[in-house]
Amino acid sequence: MTEHSLWRFSRAFYRALNERQTDQLESILDDNIDWAIYGPIDMFAFLGAKHGKRAVIDVVREISSIVQLHRFDRESLMLGEESAASLMRYSLTPLKSGNPISMRIALFAQFRAGKLTSLRAVVDTFDLVEQVLGRQIHLPQIA
Amino acid sequence: MTEHSLWRFSRAFYRALNERQTDQLESILDDNIDWAIYGPIDMFAFLGAKHGKRAVIDVVREISSIVQLHRFDRESLMLGEESAASLMRYSLTPLKSGNPISMRIALFAQFRAGKLTSLRAVVDTFDLVEQVLGRQIHLPQIA
Repeated sequence: MTEHSLWRFSRAFYRALNERQTDQLESILDDNIDWAIYGPIDMFAFLGAKHGKRAVIDVVREISSIVQLHRFDRESLMLGEESAASLMRYSLTPLKSGNPISMRIALFAQFRAGKLTSLRAVVDTFDLVEQVLGRQIHLPQIA
Repeated sequence: MTEHSLWRFSRAFYRALNERQTDQLESILDDNIDWAIYGPIDMFAFLGAKHGKRAVIDVVREISSIVQLHRFDRESLMLGEESAASLMRYSLTPLKSGNPISMRIALFAQFRAGKLTSLRAVVDTFDLVEQVLGRQIHLPQIA
């Protein structure tokens, strides 16, 4: 049984993030990858839609330059033949503030011939923003 | 081939939301369902973790009392034997303001014997909060 492409991508991603070695990541990204981590691009320019391998490598380099990833817990996982969906919890520390952050992220990945062709990520961004700011944003009670 | 439980849940959920008929939803929820839509509970008390059928019915009634759902687009879908993961885009209108809102939501569902036993939902909550407020929240540029 061949290893699922998600595991190769996962290892390559964390190697790129924590060791700043992008060689494995480059070898698994499709040249025309569609990539989007939905969130406030005013705060983090590396969020939003990106197209192509070069743009995605830049995103990962940007992320690796501002955070250290400590651990991740996989809360839910579905694997298809060339697809995967995963609900993750990341524990990380922004290098600047040093205050640990915990964030939940939902990933949807598509592979073709062992290459990642599409990745979509949804994050509980309000919680993330408050943690990065280190303070609560006052919200009116709606319901 | 039996219909996947996701479709029964999906129909029951929209019936509960838009027609305020919860009979079908009650019949598909497991008595001990674990349910969580991650997001700012200060703004929307129906967000967060809920346990048990009664609590979930209350959540759906609460949502149905404040929004009208117009359409949903399924951007990604994975089905397992008793599980499902789906990336959705909802178009809805808060009854109070009348200003249309578009929100992205990632759903992870687990079923057992045709009943929904677990649902986890991740939403791009910062975007949602800004749309509900009808204004942008100023954020510092971090990266």
